[in-house]
Amino acid sequence: MIYITRRERFNAAHKLFNENWSVEKNDEVFGKCANANWHGHNFELIVTVKGEVDPDTGFVMNLKDLSGIIQTEVTDKVDHKNLNLDVEFMRGKLASTENLVFEFWKILAPLIAAHGAQLHYIKLVETENNYVEYFGEVV
Amino acid sequence: MIYITRRERFNAAHKLFNENWSVEKNDEVFGKCANANWHGHNFELIVTVKGEVDPDTGFVMNLKDLSGIIQTEVTDKVDHKNLNLDVEFMRGKLASTENLVFEFWKILAPLIAAHGAQLHYIKLVETENNYVEYFGEVV
Amino acid sequence: MIYITRRERFNAAHKLFNENWSVEKNDEVFGKCANANWHGHNFELIVTVKGEVDPDTGFVMNLKDLSGIIQTEVTDKVDHKNLNLDVEFMRGKLASTENLVFEFWKILAPLIAAHGAQLHYIKLVETENNYVEYFGEVV
Amino acid sequence: MIYITRRERFNAAHKLFNENWSVEKNDEVFGKCANANWHGHNFELIVTVKGEVDPDTGFVMNLKDLSGIIQTEVTDKVDHKNLNLDVEFMRGKLASTENLVFEFWKILAPLIAAHGAQLHYIKLVETENNYVEYFGEVV
Amino acid sequence: MIYITRRERFNAAHKLFNENWSVEKNDEVFGKCANANWHGHNFELIVTVKGEVDPDTGFVMNLKDLSGIIQTEVTDKVDHKNLNLDVEFMRGKLASTENLVFEFWKILAPLIAAHGAQLHYIKLVETENNYVEYFGEVV
Amino acid sequence: MIYITRRERFNAAHKLFNENWSVEKNDEVFGKCANANWHGHNFELIVTVKGEVDPDTGFVMNLKDLSGIIQTEVTDKVDHKNLNLDVEFMRGKLASTENLVFEFWKILAPLIAAHGAQLHYIKLVETENNYVEYFGEVV
Repeated sequence: MIYITRRERFNAAHKLFNENWSVEKNDEVFGKCANANWHGHNFELIVTVKGEVDPDTGFVMNLKDLSGIIQTEVTDKVDHKNLNLDVEFMRGKLASTENLVFEFWKILAPLIAAHGAQLHYIKLVETENNYVEYFGEVV
Repeated sequence: MIYITRRERFNAAHKLFNENWSVEKNDEVFGKCANANWHGHNFELIVTVKGEVDPDTGFVMNLKDLSGIIQTEVTDKVDHKNLNLDVEFMRGKLASTENLVFEFWKILAPLIAAHGAQLHYIKLVETENNYVEYFGEVV
Repeated sequence: MIYITRRERFNAAHKLFNENWSVEKNDEVFGKCANANWHGHNFELIVTVKGEVDPDTGFVMNLKDLSGIIQTEVTDKVDHKNLNLDVEFMRGKLASTENLVFEFWKILAPLIAAHGAQLHYIKLVETENNYVEYFGEVV
Repeated sequence: MIYITRRERFNAAHKLFNENWSVEKNDEVFGKCANANWHGHNFELIVTVKGEVDPDTGFVMNLKDLSGIIQTEVTDKVDHKNLNLDVEFMRGKLASTENLVFEFWKILAPLIAAHGAQLHYIKLVETENNYVEYFGEVV
Repeated sequence: MIYITRRERFNAAHKLFNENWSVEKNDEVFGKCANANWHGHNFELIVTVKGEVDPDTGFVMNLKDLSGIIQTEVTDKVDHKNLNLDVEFMRGKLASTENLVFEFWKILAPLIAAHGAQLHYIKLVETENNYVEYFGEVV
Repeated sequence: MIYITRRERFNAAHKLFNENWSVEKNDEVFGKCANANWHGHNFELIVTVKGEVDPDTGFVMNLKDLSGIIQTEVTDKVDHKNLNLDVEFMRGKLASTENLVFEFWKILAPLIAAHGAQLHYIKLVETENNYVEYFGEVV
């Protein structure tokens, strides 16, 4: 078992805002992240896949394929977008980094499985000081 | 003459959009940067000041003072904000990195001069691949 | 279960020196790290917390709270300090990166537990080439 | 149990090419990585070792020793070399990042064990967007 | 006058070898960089352009255009190539970082001028510790 | 005229303290940087040299020579040292980053001139947010 990783990037706007709360409560909990007119980030998305090495290629999975899947199915849908308003799979969800990672996992896991490898890990970096990591659900 | 530099950071939403143009023309020129619902970045602001070293402190200027000026007068006004909607000094201006740098210069140059040093250079980094630099106007 | 991480930084002096050994033995084992008059580093402290996502906030733990705890209880006590002389919780201990991480863990684990999350991992980066990681004791 | 890590670097040429395939098939699978006249990378090699802390040194393992082993036994043998042509332990193997990591593991694991610690993890970074990780075989 | 910059990357093999010298002399001067079977690097190419800001776009030059020129005319011709063997414009020249920068300048300067801006600066980063910079010839 | 650059690193302790001032005045001006028992940093030293390219080597100056000079004459004298106590050329001077750069310049400029190139620029990075730059005295 070996692990290969691809980094992709996207730039998006969002705000942290719970529609069931007052503006005051949102400001209290989310602070400046609740700014009504949005703010944004350069997000780094790190995707790790695991599997056995194919003796013919020396690869777990071709990184061109992995990069292509991540771009087509994830980063093209969030890059230069508003995560609260423009992204189908975030509808009705709080646009936190944690929730983004859950949705990215749901999208990527079956597509990577279809290439004979297994999604192991997603990391989403929001700033140089903050990031979220997810290893999927242990069943 | 020696140069000292301070890096500060801010996270903001913006879009590139010329109000005098049609949506089609904006899309053609600005591409995905014209997305109606905004996008955003982690901006890095690098400010370089020049002057003589004070023999009592070994400093051109105290970096705590420089950092304080940049934060109070610039980054606090743009951090977690929408550069098109929320920022007084960007009203009526295209929210390009170039135009941000011009406005930052106008704010910072006199404040740094009041501390006995001279603003030399501003760099504004939008992504790991793109940045703008300005040395002020040569009179 | 999802993981969120906060990076904080501190700048400190230290030396590696075993009081029970001769100067020669210290020099032999620790090399230039045993320099009598100290040396120093820009340390990066990475703290990862795990837990379930709160559906009201989309957060495992508010990163402002996590950052506040790390700063108040750890980095404020070591930043711009001498790790051998100035830091209460390092008294009588070799000021190695490993030992720092053990002490940071003891301080942070209960405070993070009190916020409903669980300390998962501490990484302490001493130089761009050297770091230590700790996941706590497996009981 | 605590983990310490050392980063070393090397610059090497290679190509991805399966000798049992036609040039066309190699181009189809490996793309520009199959370029007949080679290409190259700045590789970063990250090696993590685990063990108990020695109370006399505060160390799991002296990082000077770990660095020395990695340099003498691995990076000196691949630095400024052609991974397909010049490296004894890669003879007859596809010069993929995955296969490099397997060979590095075989070399390093017994040498680190001889120093009373245990090799835990190897990461080999090929570009800022691509890397491979290995934790050894679970027996 | 304001400056905008684009970073592009390429991965290439090369060796430093003067055909007019013996192998011994090449080894003496170039050391391991003269390895007969090549070595390689991840090169970072930084290109800075200067000009006035267009009031309609807020841009000196559209970075998409700048990126496109650099990719089409420079990085596509050197990426995953052997700089000594595969690159037309390096024929008969020592494949040093300095000489690469001179050739990149000759290619890029007229193309950028044709977009109404002016090439100001090229930086070519060979490793995290070594780079070359060029501002063109002062006439 | 082309510019080549070498980065070297050193880790040192220092404090900012003016011997002619009271402790209170030092604390007021230098804040936590005046901590009596020192603090420290990972310093990055960037040295840029300019000159014509030698047609036989493709080099302005051999970077191995430049690296050797910087290490022997500068970084070996400050690495794992106390900049206030252990460094001959800082005796009686405030250990500010500015003053370090001035002394490094005096040491390096004649040595680089003796290799047929010209010292152009020194940058000394103290933290990821603070650095000093110097181009020598304009005569």
